[in-house]
Amino acid sequence: MADTTAVTRIPAAKLEAFLNRSFVAVGIPAGDAKVIAELMVRADLQGSEGHGIFRLPQYVRRIKGGAVNVKPRIRVVREAGGMALVDGDNGMGHLVMRFATEKAIEKAKAAGAAWVGVRMSNHAGPASLYASMPLAHDMIGLYLAVGNANHLPPWGGLDMLLSTNPIAVAVPAGEEPPVVLDMATTVAAYGKVKTKAQRGEMMPEGWMMDREGRPLTDSRRANEGFLLPIGGYKGYGLALVFGLLAGTLNGAAMGKDVVDFNADETSVTNTGHVIVAINVEAFQPVAEFRKSVDMLIRDIRNSKRLPGVDRIRLPGDGSHATRAERLKNGVPLSAPLAASLNQLAAELKIAPL
Amino acid sequence: MADTTAVTRIPAAKLEAFLNRSFVAVGIPAGDAKVIAELMVRADLQGSEGHGIFRLPQYVRRIKGGAVNVKPRIRVVREAGGMALVDGDNGMGHLVMRFATEKAIEKAKAAGAAWVGVRMSNHAGPASLYASMPLAHDMIGLYLAVGNANHLPPWGGLDMLLSTNPIAVAVPAGEEPPVVLDMATTVAAYGKVKTKAQRGEMMPEGWMMDREGRPLTDSRRANEGFLLPIGGYKGYGLALVFGLLAGTLNGAAMGKDVVDFNADETSVTNTGHVIVAINVEAFQPVAEFRKSVDMLIRDIRNSKRLPGVDRIRLPGDGSHATRAERLKNGVPLSAPLAASLNQLAAELKIAPL
Repeated sequence: MADTTAVTRIPAAKLEAFLNRSFVAVGIPAGDAKVIAELMVRADLQGSEGHGIFRLPQYVRRIKGGAVNVKPRIRVVREAGGMALVDGDNGMGHLVMRFATEKAIEKAKAAGAAWVGVRMSNHAGPASLYASMPLAHDMIGLYLAVGNANHLPPWGGLDMLLSTNPIAVAVPAGEEPPVVLDMATTVAAYGKVKTKAQRGEMMPEGWMMDREGRPLTDSRRANEGFLLPIGGYKGYGLALVFGLLAGTLNGAAMGKDVVDFNADETSVTNTGHVIVAINVEAFQPVAEFRKSVDMLIRDIRNSKRLPGVDRIRLPGDGSHATRAERLKNGVPLSAPLAASLNQLAAELKIAPL
Repeated sequence: MADTTAVTRIPAAKLEAFLNRSFVAVGIPAGDAKVIAELMVRADLQGSEGHGIFRLPQYVRRIKGGAVNVKPRIRVVREAGGMALVDGDNGMGHLVMRFATEKAIEKAKAAGAAWVGVRMSNHAGPASLYASMPLAHDMIGLYLAVGNANHLPPWGGLDMLLSTNPIAVAVPAGEEPPVVLDMATTVAAYGKVKTKAQRGEMMPEGWMMDREGRPLTDSRRANEGFLLPIGGYKGYGLALVFGLLAGTLNGAAMGKDVVDFNADETSVTNTGHVIVAINVEAFQPVAEFRKSVDMLIRDIRNSKRLPGVDRIRLPGDGSHATRAERLKNGVPLSAPLAASLNQLAAELKIAPL
């Protein structure tokens, strides 16, 4: 067996250039390839490994399979003062969501808040990428999506009609880093299960359940069970309503129409998302708001702690720290991942990593 | 000991009339008293007992203590195309939230979606009351709030800086009842803990933790511990960002500024909420949307089931059924609650129940 623990560090710029030439090689226009590459590296830098360059071989397979449109006409199909509906024309999700988020920001400048729904998109990487974009404009971002594979049944059920439909919310602070929550509505994301399986590790109880309702901890048997929602029926309810908002309302896939993009290289996913931009200035002076958020963050950080806890973390703390470290030392790639990327390079006839 | 299990059934109209005369007796104008009474009975009818007439003695104590303004000037203090900020002038939360929700609905007719923040409000009853109001206008409602007592520390911490900050989302269907999710971000709401304590019952593991991080199951010792968030750090993150959106952004109380309205009869709470109204018609024809929601609901209901599960429920199913049953048979009141209400009637010199 290959040593799956060996890790090489690759500078972000090098990863980005590799992603860029990969996408150009499969027919994506240079400007668009650059946008996607930059967003995917952002995912790797912040520690969202399951959503970064790790996805490249899969994206390429789906592009080659005709499942994704490399030259989409992304456009607003409906619009009013406080909303827009974007049709992504089956383009790469990163491009579609960047477009939609810029639209939400632009509209929120005038309207104070703007709700932008998206249909005909694809997997777009980590939710926090888009929730965080409004931060630079003194805005709060809120993102919802329908996940790209159903691993969650309704509470008490067996039919996997729901995905891990995530929510991300990013709130600007002052001197403190922004609060950035990014979470699936299941206890574990399915990517974590796959990582355990690759490593031959057991899962903790509470991640998955088998079809008899018993805890499932053997990651190699993951396909015999399903993920568990956070808080039992509460997480089921969240996954359902986030899916209604991000999927059904936008005319995007939801429920049994969701395509498992891990197992399919030819079908259009019609992925749905929502991005809401909320302009702080419409509610109160930005400086005052930033100060209030800083105070709250500090009260939380300075909270007395449970025995054995060395520090209190805010949502986003981990990814901020990871980003700083990886910008300095490079992004860690496991030996098998690096090998698979160089194999892809050979197939695409581009320079390796 | 009084028999706490004895229950009388009171017709909704009788409860509403009693609530109405109670509020008039403490100085609330007749029209406003009627609105509050109707909303509180709606809570009891749908099974949200902890938010209905059960709260009347506490509301009256706080009104008499000068903590709540009986003649508020509720008004919009900031407004743009897609948002408004409402100042409740410290009125009863039900009045403030009805005003804010009507504003959101009115704005969403033109803007497609409207985000309305609220400050200087008070406890307003169950979240679903307000999330459900847009349904009659072919709109989706989304509600967030800062809870009125902090029972949740940050993850790993001991200082109770967070409340059970709830979310409610209501989505219209066609022939099926609407999907109405209404949930606290903690495993159990604090009201459930108090009910267990009143009955001398133990709590299940997972509801609360003591200050050493051990499971706390003795409901009589509830004040020695704190509530646990759903999904561990995830529920902490949700409570935090919902509080930033409903509290901090609106200039309402959040974090250490939150007043425990159960233990305080004189302080202004400055409660914050958010109500978002999303006009389905701005996204797609309403009839098509309703049909899609019906199909999804039916797929979920018809899912194969885990062993021992007799039916799959949608969020809101329980409250719809309870409402139908109670409209027919009356609202059940426990003997101690009925006694305390009649004692209140004597104090207020109004006709008893």
